[in-house]
Amino acid sequence: MTLETLSSGVDTIWVVLTAAMILLMEGGFALLEAGFVRQKNAVSIIMKVFVDISFGALLFYAVGFALMYGKDAGGLIGTSGFGMKGDLSHLSLNISTDTFWLFQCAFVIAVISIVSGAVAERIHFRAYIVYTIVMTGLIYPISGHWIWSAGGWLAKLGMVDFAGSAAIHALGGFAALAAALFLGPRIGRFAEDGRVNIVPPSNLPLASVGAFILWFGWFGFNSGSTLSATNPNIGHIAVTTMLASAAGSAACILFTILRYQKADPPTVINGALAGLVGITAGCAFVSDGAAIFIGAFSGIAMVLATEWLERRRVDDPVGAFAVHGICGSIGTLAVGLFAVPSLSPNAGLFYGGGWKLLGVQALGLAVVAVWGFALTWGALKLINAWRPVRVSRDEELVGLDVGIHGVPAYSQEHDFLDIERLKAE
Amino acid sequence: MTLETLSSGVDTIWVVLTAAMILLMEGGFALLEAGFVRQKNAVSIIMKVFVDISFGALLFYAVGFALMYGKDAGGLIGTSGFGMKGDLSHLSLNISTDTFWLFQCAFVIAVISIVSGAVAERIHFRAYIVYTIVMTGLIYPISGHWIWSAGGWLAKLGMVDFAGSAAIHALGGFAALAAALFLGPRIGRFAEDGRVNIVPPSNLPLASVGAFILWFGWFGFNSGSTLSATNPNIGHIAVTTMLASAAGSAACILFTILRYQKADPPTVINGALAGLVGITAGCAFVSDGAAIFIGAFSGIAMVLATEWLERRRVDDPVGAFAVHGICGSIGTLAVGLFAVPSLSPNAGLFYGGGWKLLGVQALGLAVVAVWGFALTWGALKLINAWRPVRVSRDEELVGLDVGIHGVPAYSQEHDFLDIERLKAE
Amino acid sequence: MTLETLSSGVDTIWVVLTAAMILLMEGGFALLEAGFVRQKNAVSIIMKVFVDISFGALLFYAVGFALMYGKDAGGLIGTSGFGMKGDLSHLSLNISTDTFWLFQCAFVIAVISIVSGAVAERIHFRAYIVYTIVMTGLIYPISGHWIWSAGGWLAKLGMVDFAGSAAIHALGGFAALAAALFLGPRIGRFAEDGRVNIVPPSNLPLASVGAFILWFGWFGFNSGSTLSATNPNIGHIAVTTMLASAAGSAACILFTILRYQKADPPTVINGALAGLVGITAGCAFVSDGAAIFIGAFSGIAMVLATEWLERRRVDDPVGAFAVHGICGSIGTLAVGLFAVPSLSPNAGLFYGGGWKLLGVQALGLAVVAVWGFALTWGALKLINAWRPVRVSRDEELVGLDVGIHGVPAYSQEHDFLDIERLKAE
Repeated sequence: MTLETLSSGVDTIWVVLTAAMILLMEGGFALLEAGFVRQKNAVSIIMKVFVDISFGALLFYAVGFALMYGKDAGGLIGTSGFGMKGDLSHLSLNISTDTFWLFQCAFVIAVISIVSGAVAERIHFRAYIVYTIVMTGLIYPISGHWIWSAGGWLAKLGMVDFAGSAAIHALGGFAALAAALFLGPRIGRFAEDGRVNIVPPSNLPLASVGAFILWFGWFGFNSGSTLSATNPNIGHIAVTTMLASAAGSAACILFTILRYQKADPPTVINGALAGLVGITAGCAFVSDGAAIFIGAFSGIAMVLATEWLERRRVDDPVGAFAVHGICGSIGTLAVGLFAVPSLSPNAGLFYGGGWKLLGVQALGLAVVAVWGFALTWGALKLINAWRPVRVSRDEELVGLDVGIHGVPAYSQEHDFLDIERLKAE
Repeated sequence: MTLETLSSGVDTIWVVLTAAMILLMEGGFALLEAGFVRQKNAVSIIMKVFVDISFGALLFYAVGFALMYGKDAGGLIGTSGFGMKGDLSHLSLNISTDTFWLFQCAFVIAVISIVSGAVAERIHFRAYIVYTIVMTGLIYPISGHWIWSAGGWLAKLGMVDFAGSAAIHALGGFAALAAALFLGPRIGRFAEDGRVNIVPPSNLPLASVGAFILWFGWFGFNSGSTLSATNPNIGHIAVTTMLASAAGSAACILFTILRYQKADPPTVINGALAGLVGITAGCAFVSDGAAIFIGAFSGIAMVLATEWLERRRVDDPVGAFAVHGICGSIGTLAVGLFAVPSLSPNAGLFYGGGWKLLGVQALGLAVVAVWGFALTWGALKLINAWRPVRVSRDEELVGLDVGIHGVPAYSQEHDFLDIERLKAE
Repeated sequence: MTLETLSSGVDTIWVVLTAAMILLMEGGFALLEAGFVRQKNAVSIIMKVFVDISFGALLFYAVGFALMYGKDAGGLIGTSGFGMKGDLSHLSLNISTDTFWLFQCAFVIAVISIVSGAVAERIHFRAYIVYTIVMTGLIYPISGHWIWSAGGWLAKLGMVDFAGSAAIHALGGFAALAAALFLGPRIGRFAEDGRVNIVPPSNLPLASVGAFILWFGWFGFNSGSTLSATNPNIGHIAVTTMLASAAGSAACILFTILRYQKADPPTVINGALAGLVGITAGCAFVSDGAAIFIGAFSGIAMVLATEWLERRRVDDPVGAFAVHGICGSIGTLAVGLFAVPSLSPNAGLFYGGGWKLLGVQALGLAVVAVWGFALTWGALKLINAWRPVRVSRDEELVGLDVGIHGVPAYSQEHDFLDIERLKAE
């Protein structure tokens, strides 16, 4: 046993444990989304999460990882590491490539899960499978390469995105917006006379627990992104993560009390997530106070963005764009404002770093937003030419659970059903 | 890389991971409580958990941590570390102050969550927010200082409370009792002719999963309290934790079969938690056999305490006082009986330590119980002078979900609701 | 602080954390099973999980651990370590016996939880308690000794079962089959005219989350089985675990689309678990590609086995035999085919190792399957001679929740019930 062996072992268990925490976030996404949508679509959205995690992992293994972290070609794309084979020595990790892959795999699954919420209650399952393949094998790995691969062109410009407000959340959020716009609103969401209709979430306790599981997983997401257990910043990262989410949730409690005369549960749930998304880029680089500000600002911005989307008659059933797109953007830009010289390679505007970092962050954000939006739109356009991406009117009205998957989410039957008779009916 | 750097890194990830596990316990509290109360109040209680974690974290950051762990003044209170600033060198930690704060923050959130169960179904949301601020910013930090700060007067007397049967659970439990008494029973719980009414829990599967999540988190709670990965006692702590909870649950299974001719699910769920609460003070100091005894004894005491409270017409909807107050007291005193010389700084009565440790434990417990009860009563009295702490009769009858938060926990609606028409109705 | 102390500490926290993850799997089993059965039996199955974890832990502490890991007698049984006392020096661990016990305790609880699914909706609670005592105190520890104790006869023959496809899953699966056959099908499951009846699962979102929690816990199950944080294989183990489960889930999505024209949610949920069970024996020994193959093959085999059991009129409510028995068998044999020389002590058939390893694996599997089946049948036979293991017809029709435990899983009551009046009714 040498110090180096032990150190590498410690880094390995740190990354494996935090990766497992991130994977558990899929359970959080599933609960959050199933709780927010109508009961008739609760299973269908969970099946999408199974697609995320199963097809996502396989595609990222076969293709995505290589495009993202393979040997750089022109700052644009990785070219080695398909099926985790080939030369990956340029990564110069203290952990095995396997371990690194697992952590990155947990990330790509999170990206596609963001989109799953925006297309809820109306996308066809087979179309979603194909889109998942494109997102996890192509869209995310390429823009991820630009930001996080040492040779990526945005990384070289000095863009800073610690755990992915841009690379994960803004990308996923703008892809979600494109998908929501492409699909159009759910039947009945916006009445012809201009009135806005809502449905109460089917299961708020489930949705809340989803948020708590996501909150738990986020400590893995942010702290684990150090990839090293001896990074002296781990405690600080966990604290800014905690403070920003607390601030996002508290801000939404107070803001909805002031605005609607009641603390609105779905808003409070999303407020905690908004704070978490907002701090993801800067968790390692900003002060505690800035984290509280970023969290609270993200929470309130999420509320306003949700209202704005509704006025624009955009139907995003679980608020994927407001939470991930808007707060991911805030988080990316906030680094340009609040990055502290002692913590960050480049200082932000408020800490004497001038406009440079903010400019790079804005550029990177714009690029990722356009990339996520455009390729998602294009992918759905192509898929639609093959088979309709939206379910039929009948399937939507009866609900995707029974309409597409042939089984309801909840059953209060106490006895067995006679299958033959059911088929005959 | 030096051995010291690596050692500090290992301690850091140990504390961050166990802190995250404790934070996940909030999801457990939310499920447990939402499952135990009536459906019409399931969201309202989860919103309280959001208050616990968001306002609790912010208050403990701004004020509570300093009062608890700041430079000691007269054994009574801490005086530095507001906003984690100022001199905290007296803590002499092997981990960063950030990391230590995160762990302590997870603890304070647990304390206030204990109270949330006792006030379920009838406290007003704004009153609960104010009470949370008082508890997490003042009540808990001060008594916590007495027990856990090196300079605290109870600590100096030799009080031993490893992970908080007294500091966390007895405090929270007696505060819960005060709040339950102050608020009075829910409408209809005790009929005028003396009959006791019950309602079956709204969702026992949810409540059970809450218990399993709490059980998981407790391994972080107890083992993580070492704050050091090289504490040779970690395995033993985890084992006593496991055995006590198993014994609490098994005892309640057998006891309810004997007493009611059926294994009563809510009792079994609380029995596992009772065992966990009971072992929290002594997990590091008692033998395996004592852990099994403490767990089983706590479980049965919880059942008897629940029945006694009911006879006294005290309405504690989820059994917060029986689980945390009673079993926290048992656990605190048990250390005075069972502490083993080889594990504990002071031996218990049954291991040749005489009456001294038991006396100190009893004194500390009494102080904490009175402190938690009195300050909670006083705080609610003050809040009540501002605005009623209890909801109106109408709000209580319709349920707090719709009455206060404007949305039901569960909705089986399959179509959209026309908001304008709803408002007009 | 020495390197050895630190290394031992790191191994300890690794094992404690992964053990806690495995214990959380009990929450996963509870949700999965409660979601799959009918609403009227949802609490009853969760109460069985409480029996698993409480009685299982206590029995394994008192007896099971000694029989499994005590000083070997003739390759057949362990003879020391009852109540973790006596000579256990032959274990030569880098962690404390306590820590090792905790991890093994988490395993035994998983075994009995496998059986709980197969007996759902019709076993009597007291019979289940007695069976749990036999399984965790006797059946599993003895066959576990043969495979995992250094002196066990199957271990000496060269049987390889990294995290327990045979020792845990095949044993549990064949015990589940015996129990399902002994109890017979639920009333109404198979009509007299030969028709097969089904009931839709009561709560698919709950069942799904159960699967996600199990998935999370499996990273502890497989990676933690190294018992050492410096095992260079940890990353690889986690990756094969991830890939096999993704492949199992993806295969079931595609297979059910082809076979039933719809992605069938319960099958997809079980498909992810099938892949996890299948990779459990070989996660440390096979290549990534083999892991994908094993996972996909396990998923499809699980579907076919489920259909085959149904045709044979065997009623296994949650598919315990198909998932754990069949895929555990596949996983055990797969090691004999796919074990890579650089990773495994013995190479598999496809990697130049000849038929030897495959033969040993097949022998071990057959022994474990017969042992689990026969002793379970015998135990139930004996219990049945004391009191009926199956509930009465009336209890089964009304459901075990109300029939045995006196409380429904879900209640939509908004007001209190008058107990006296209820009793009078």
